[in-house]
Amino acid sequence: MEKQSIPKQFIYGGDYNPEQWLDRPDILARDLEMLQKARINAVTLGVFSWSILEPEEGVFHLEWLKEMMNTLYARGIRVILATPSGARPRWLAEKYPEVLRVREDRVRCLYGERHNHCYTSPVYRQKVRMINQKLAETFKDHPGVILWHISNEYGGECHCPLCQAAFRRWLKERYQTIDALNHAWWTTFWSHTYTSFEQVESPSTLGDSGLHGLSLDWKRFVTAQTTDFMREEIRALREAGATQPVNTNFMEDYTGLNYYELAKEIDIVSWDSYPLWRYQSDSRTALQTGMQHDLMRTMKHAPFLLMESSPSGLNWQPVSKLKKPGLLLNASLHAIAHGADSVQFFQIRQGRGGFEKFHGAVIDHYGGEDTRVFREVTQTGQALESLACIAGSQVDAPAAVLWDTESRWAMEQARGPRNEGLFYREAVFKSYQALRKCGLNVDLLQVEQPLEGYRMLVVPMLYMFRSGIEDRLREFVQGGGTLIMTYWSGIVNETDLCYLGGTPHGLTDLLGLRSEEIDALCTGEVHHFAAESGAPQYRCENLCDLVRLQGAQTLMRYTDDFYRGYPAVTVHPYGKGRAYYICTDAEEGFYNDFYKEVTACLNLAPILPSMPEGLEVSSRQDEENEYIFVQNFTDDPISLPVPPNAAVLFGDFEAGQVQGCSTVVFRRRRV
Amino acid sequence: MEKQSIPKQFIYGGDYNPEQWLDRPDILARDLEMLQKARINAVTLGVFSWSILEPEEGVFHLEWLKEMMNTLYARGIRVILATPSGARPRWLAEKYPEVLRVREDRVRCLYGERHNHCYTSPVYRQKVRMINQKLAETFKDHPGVILWHISNEYGGECHCPLCQAAFRRWLKERYQTIDALNHAWWTTFWSHTYTSFEQVESPSTLGDSGLHGLSLDWKRFVTAQTTDFMREEIRALREAGATQPVNTNFMEDYTGLNYYELAKEIDIVSWDSYPLWRYQSDSRTALQTGMQHDLMRTMKHAPFLLMESSPSGLNWQPVSKLKKPGLLLNASLHAIAHGADSVQFFQIRQGRGGFEKFHGAVIDHYGGEDTRVFREVTQTGQALESLACIAGSQVDAPAAVLWDTESRWAMEQARGPRNEGLFYREAVFKSYQALRKCGLNVDLLQVEQPLEGYRMLVVPMLYMFRSGIEDRLREFVQGGGTLIMTYWSGIVNETDLCYLGGTPHGLTDLLGLRSEEIDALCTGEVHHFAAESGAPQYRCENLCDLVRLQGAQTLMRYTDDFYRGYPAVTVHPYGKGRAYYICTDAEEGFYNDFYKEVTACLNLAPILPSMPEGLEVSSRQDEENEYIFVQNFTDDPISLPVPPNAAVLFGDFEAGQVQGCSTVVFRRRRV
Amino acid sequence: MEKQSIPKQFIYGGDYNPEQWLDRPDILARDLEMLQKARINAVTLGVFSWSILEPEEGVFHLEWLKEMMNTLYARGIRVILATPSGARPRWLAEKYPEVLRVREDRVRCLYGERHNHCYTSPVYRQKVRMINQKLAETFKDHPGVILWHISNEYGGECHCPLCQAAFRRWLKERYQTIDALNHAWWTTFWSHTYTSFEQVESPSTLGDSGLHGLSLDWKRFVTAQTTDFMREEIRALREAGATQPVNTNFMEDYTGLNYYELAKEIDIVSWDSYPLWRYQSDSRTALQTGMQHDLMRTMKHAPFLLMESSPSGLNWQPVSKLKKPGLLLNASLHAIAHGADSVQFFQIRQGRGGFEKFHGAVIDHYGGEDTRVFREVTQTGQALESLACIAGSQVDAPAAVLWDTESRWAMEQARGPRNEGLFYREAVFKSYQALRKCGLNVDLLQVEQPLEGYRMLVVPMLYMFRSGIEDRLREFVQGGGTLIMTYWSGIVNETDLCYLGGTPHGLTDLLGLRSEEIDALCTGEVHHFAAESGAPQYRCENLCDLVRLQGAQTLMRYTDDFYRGYPAVTVHPYGKGRAYYICTDAEEGFYNDFYKEVTACLNLAPILPSMPEGLEVSSRQDEENEYIFVQNFTDDPISLPVPPNAAVLFGDFEAGQVQGCSTVVFRRRRV
Repeated sequence: MEKQSIPKQFIYGGDYNPEQWLDRPDILARDLEMLQKARINAVTLGVFSWSILEPEEGVFHLEWLKEMMNTLYARGIRVILATPSGARPRWLAEKYPEVLRVREDRVRCLYGERHNHCYTSPVYRQKVRMINQKLAETFKDHPGVILWHISNEYGGECHCPLCQAAFRRWLKERYQTIDALNHAWWTTFWSHTYTSFEQVESPSTLGDSGLHGLSLDWKRFVTAQTTDFMREEIRALREAGATQPVNTNFMEDYTGLNYYELAKEIDIVSWDSYPLWRYQSDSRTALQTGMQHDLMRTMKHAPFLLMESSPSGLNWQPVSKLKKPGLLLNASLHAIAHGADSVQFFQIRQGRGGFEKFHGAVIDHYGGEDTRVFREVTQTGQALESLACIAGSQVDAPAAVLWDTESRWAMEQARGPRNEGLFYREAVFKSYQALRKCGLNVDLLQVEQPLEGYRMLVVPMLYMFRSGIEDRLREFVQGGGTLIMTYWSGIVNETDLCYLGGTPHGLTDLLGLRSEEIDALCTGEVHHFAAESGAPQYRCENLCDLVRLQGAQTLMRYTDDFYRGYPAVTVHPYGKGRAYYICTDAEEGFYNDFYKEVTACLNLAPILPSMPEGLEVSSRQDEENEYIFVQNFTDDPISLPVPPNAAVLFGDFEAGQVQGCSTVVFRRRRV
Repeated sequence: MEKQSIPKQFIYGGDYNPEQWLDRPDILARDLEMLQKARINAVTLGVFSWSILEPEEGVFHLEWLKEMMNTLYARGIRVILATPSGARPRWLAEKYPEVLRVREDRVRCLYGERHNHCYTSPVYRQKVRMINQKLAETFKDHPGVILWHISNEYGGECHCPLCQAAFRRWLKERYQTIDALNHAWWTTFWSHTYTSFEQVESPSTLGDSGLHGLSLDWKRFVTAQTTDFMREEIRALREAGATQPVNTNFMEDYTGLNYYELAKEIDIVSWDSYPLWRYQSDSRTALQTGMQHDLMRTMKHAPFLLMESSPSGLNWQPVSKLKKPGLLLNASLHAIAHGADSVQFFQIRQGRGGFEKFHGAVIDHYGGEDTRVFREVTQTGQALESLACIAGSQVDAPAAVLWDTESRWAMEQARGPRNEGLFYREAVFKSYQALRKCGLNVDLLQVEQPLEGYRMLVVPMLYMFRSGIEDRLREFVQGGGTLIMTYWSGIVNETDLCYLGGTPHGLTDLLGLRSEEIDALCTGEVHHFAAESGAPQYRCENLCDLVRLQGAQTLMRYTDDFYRGYPAVTVHPYGKGRAYYICTDAEEGFYNDFYKEVTACLNLAPILPSMPEGLEVSSRQDEENEYIFVQNFTDDPISLPVPPNAAVLFGDFEAGQVQGCSTVVFRRRRV
Repeated sequence: MEKQSIPKQFIYGGDYNPEQWLDRPDILARDLEMLQKARINAVTLGVFSWSILEPEEGVFHLEWLKEMMNTLYARGIRVILATPSGARPRWLAEKYPEVLRVREDRVRCLYGERHNHCYTSPVYRQKVRMINQKLAETFKDHPGVILWHISNEYGGECHCPLCQAAFRRWLKERYQTIDALNHAWWTTFWSHTYTSFEQVESPSTLGDSGLHGLSLDWKRFVTAQTTDFMREEIRALREAGATQPVNTNFMEDYTGLNYYELAKEIDIVSWDSYPLWRYQSDSRTALQTGMQHDLMRTMKHAPFLLMESSPSGLNWQPVSKLKKPGLLLNASLHAIAHGADSVQFFQIRQGRGGFEKFHGAVIDHYGGEDTRVFREVTQTGQALESLACIAGSQVDAPAAVLWDTESRWAMEQARGPRNEGLFYREAVFKSYQALRKCGLNVDLLQVEQPLEGYRMLVVPMLYMFRSGIEDRLREFVQGGGTLIMTYWSGIVNETDLCYLGGTPHGLTDLLGLRSEEIDALCTGEVHHFAAESGAPQYRCENLCDLVRLQGAQTLMRYTDDFYRGYPAVTVHPYGKGRAYYICTDAEEGFYNDFYKEVTACLNLAPILPSMPEGLEVSSRQDEENEYIFVQNFTDDPISLPVPPNAAVLFGDFEAGQVQGCSTVVFRRRRV
């Protein structure tokens, strides 16, 4: 077979499981026709196909797959090929029970569901290596294969004896001596001192669940072990000669892994996006989803893939709403606007049975083309073709919000001022959405990534200071950057030991203040704060930091309770920059007003000179052009002044309006 | 002892546990006097008496029971004799641990509580057979014994190795080959393919809990195994020569078993009715309870027994309210009105200790006759005596609502449009109550029962089509019947595999439409629909089916959201009949109005020519008479035109009013 | 070292864990300076220090402790020395797994957390004995040691085989024969008869959880076993020659133990008080906390210790609020007012890690003196010094409310009229707070304590009558006492068997009525009752007793539901006294009005002639003086007429006002 050159285009496709229909060639043939009609140019094969690929130990059946790939390729449809480790065959669990997970309560699971395998088990690793090698040997040179999809939505943890041993080795590597571990975990408290690494047990409701250093390192270990498992999966492909890029698909706000560690090992970041449209205003859902897109893009400062999304409703949420007409297109272009180079679906065809039989699909049980969903899928395919020139272009952001999974782990497991909710993600979102409403592209930056190049950096609730972040922030402000830091930052070090001598650790001089106490509000309890002048007044909740000024200037003050008059927002010039401190969990309205002022002050130019309320504006750029996406997620048209020097590339911009639930893309030549 | 002939009468009695008081003959003697005063004519003995009947393995003490039965018989009180398998003695569990259940998490229980025995265990079956035979041998000829009460409230499940093996045998019998099972359960999904029946494990949170075919067949197996166990209990009695009828007591809306399968094996259906009176309006509670009475009656199209009810409050609900004055009589006659041939209580005498020591009883801890409850029990006994002529009469219903436990199992375990509630039972009730308000007796028909003889058939949410129901419905309409079918019907086959090619499966031509998509509303979210003319408008919630018409006529349309204007109610003439389709979970008010119209159209005559609001009207008939029960569950009198050709048989009908919380029974000669 | 005489003073101090900082002598030195500044005169050492004291089995390191005690003593700071059994070292669990608890589901725990040891284990008892002896031998003569702190917050239970065996022995001792046990637990119900003590298993969700006699005796056994364990701890100290008094610290409303049994074995009662200030009005929180203080004081009718409290916020509640300015002092003096002879904190210094690293402390992570908290701690130390003359004085109460943990256990585990809440503690509080608002000191009396000396006795919801309480109450009223008894009293005997023949058992003649039925209201449902005259009307909820009068006079009647007109409050003169009966869970307002009338009737003189609303008034007395504490927990000043013959001893009483959040103490010479 001859390798065709792939035109510059967006990947358009999704998960396809023809192995469920091998006894129905009529259906498979019909599928192919429909895929072509819908402009689908790539499908993902092999996710969860292990029991078909290797029905008995060491007996491989790959013919059907090869045939399917040939047929697809002949129609111009390429393949993203999955390694099948996301679910193993029954025979594997039956013969080697060690591959089954052990729960935190030390009970070994039975075979079942999906992600129920030990990532440490040598047997499981070996069996995965073999099937991966087989796949790579067979398909490495197939011209249709454009990408490897490593496993599926890695997640979960195992507490089996093999994992306990691996955890102990990992700790020994990290701490060298048991005394170092004892100090790091502060085990003198409650007489928890270890006298040997052999005494370490993973966190458990049967044992230690409140030893925070242990819990935190366990989470790190789970990430490390999963990453190592993935590395071994990739190595198997490479050793067998596969040269295509690899990726693995992430989930929204999955807190079991630090995805940034996995991202380092793959070529392309991708994720599975399942927003709950029509639960609240779609504009708000779009903003929230956009933050997740931006997080994925920022991990590699590069285009990502939207590996899964639903053509219609879901089936695993409490309530599964349909996508309303037009939303499929609008949401798909939303991913593109934020830097995606693909729109992919779970799933191409609904299975007749199983857990996800009612999940939205390009082709449903009815099976015909005369469905609303299929029409919209086709319409989206056409749109992507017409926007193909944008594929591969970059996103440039002048502002960033810092994100750190490890800090969040530590913060959320600690018993502190507010155990019924700290709202870390919400705090990040409050700053994110306000910056977006200022008309800016925004990066969601990992704490370890370089700070250079940004004009403005928001650091919300960075409970844990690690990776020398305090020094790098100092340098950033010194050099002219604008820093906004909030309450509950710089409290602990990387093993969750509290810093002594005043917080935010190492930055009290930069911020010109020290946090003295922090008060917590009950759920539903609201306080307020206001500018010196008294108006406007903003609401705040959850946490109120009481700071002692050491040079900072008070911009706003609390107006309630015994700390009425205490500072709520401060600023401190430092070096060539400025450092703001926000003491409390303020309402979004505050952030909107405040960042408008700060960005104006900094002359941070928005993508569009004027930002009509209700529109979501993003831009991508290549060497020659800037592509401006203006998206309306409301039901009503919104007027927009024609962007200067820009031409409509896509969409209905009649009468200077962006229609309800639609997108207009402008092209602007870069000067 | 000479067998007296039993007069035509209602059974009036309840569970009695004299074995708790064998050291207090004074109390037992006093009990007897009070039973007679209260007109009690039968008591249920032996429920949970095993440890007294067989205190050591193989040592039987039945003397006390014989003596008690003789004493009762001498006073004209008959006996319903229970097999004691509802709770086993400690020695049995101690000696044969295999009789103890294993939970779904594979943990074997300790001895304790009640229903904690394996239905598969050969030892348990053998021990039950022996005690049953002993009872039958001893009492088969006792003239007082009128009925056998097999075990008590069968329920629960066991996951022990013996049950696993039995389950595998049952599956092998059902599917013959593992390939057939794999196809039926669609195991290719998530690589769940079985290569041998030996790999099957019952559903478990440790293993597979989302493999719907497995879960569904497990539930079927639990019913089959329980039924088999019961069959063996009955066989033991029969082999020992007992000839009295057998029954077992069902519970309200117990979803662990498909009662219809058990009903096939017994002579009389009975159930334990514990409505939560005074939680909401008692009229509504009566309607809900009436539906359950009708379900029990319809299983055999014959009178049933009200095997348990409380003379006063309960003790195992979150909050136990007293029955208000008059309610005991009214609720007892309510069961009679719906086809019961008995009123029986749990319990005759409160125990001093144990889990149910505060449950309402005919004789309480105080022990005297000067209690409100005892007065009302006596009054009820007198009423039943005066209505004795009605015992044995039948209920005739022109309309039926279909009920299917298996479909409900499948629907409620599936992950689909609405996982936080589908409201199957509520949907059935909405139709049921509306038909009742139209003045009709209503059958609650099992999906396997014949459809002949009905004029009108409601099929709410019949997710699973099995037993050829689509063909039988077609025949029903073809022949002139009126069918009302709702959303979420005909989706899957009997192993929960989705039908391909359009739904409701096999009936799209009959209904003149096809369901294209289904939207779900959040809890609390309300939509509306209205007649073409625009008024009245009705509320709907939970699920909104979006249909594509193929011949049907639209009667009402949605008025909200993106599907405003889509059909909400349709009709399609077919053969000599008509088929209606209701697309959404409509409010009761819609059903009330709609069925009034449909029944008028069909000339379905109500029991009473005019139906005053707030009254519950039912009728029973024998060859000569129709007995019309008019029941008022409100607190205020309600006027009623004297029913034509009818005479007051019972109750206060002064001034043409049915008093608050009371019943009037009319007798009408049949033409 | 020479023993200094200890001046009459309040203990001021708290838990101190220098072992966490042995590598930081600079910090320990700084701590000492700060303690002295804050007027701290005693610290608690050794709580949770076992792994430092005995780092390997049999290897003891007590030098650091001796050194610390010497240093402290040299500065005038005394020591309360803890036995370390509250948490054991890892090596102990590793070597002797039997010391680890087994949960009720029969799963043995891993090492972890704190209270995770078997109280029965001979090994654990022996290891505790050894370390206790070592401590006693080493420090029995140290002049700084003023008190032994036995373990820490005893609690929890173990279901291991050793505990099962001990439980069986305990039962055999209690019941002698298995027949006696069967009768006491009414095991004939549900065929639960035991044929041998060996069949007894502790309550378990795997076995019996609804056998109330078993559950109740298990709770008694847990208390007995814990007490026995504590006795052995104390014996070890005594045998090694320690002569200082012993105490153990109780928790607020901990229902796992009957503290009264433990209190019998110790010299001084103490408890750990962590009210949730600023969640509701602080005045109400103070009343609730005062009830707990009074319960602790009444156990020995003697001053108690406030062993733990927080200098600021907590960290283990859902939401941890700061103490507002002044509250630390006010709350500390509140304990003193109710009879405490100490104010102690958890914790002197915050640890850097561990579960409680964010718990309030005298010295926080910042570590400096320039914090609000440290200033207020110092201010409180000064106040205690100025009130030293009050230390050791008594509280005299003319009224008492009865409290019984065993009755509460039985009532709350029973399945009865209201399983979603009986509100025992709330019912006790309603009477308590009303009596306090009448200006009285109030005792919270255990059911076994003598009733002599009181004028008025409230017996709320005494479900279980034991210890001959009915005879003692009769004697009390006969002799002129005023008894107020409520609904749900006298229902069962000491093994939870219902009394026959009418309730409240044995007191129907005293009360002049019998309880016939009890109705339950749903949560949120409200009924009313009113005086014969009709006004005022009061709200009631949860439970409504319907009584039949046999001589009592009706004071108030229900105004709702079918029991409108039934008695709600009655009175019956008996002997020289009177017995009131309150039929329902009335609102606080009723109790306030009613007790005002009853106490006026009885000429019970309040501490102050007039009681301004919002003030908390208490008094202590020694031979010469009465000390009157007037405490304002509101934010605003409250005027108070100068108490006759009293002089201000402490506090700001300018302008005849008690300032917001402050205390005034008056001294009055006793006549």
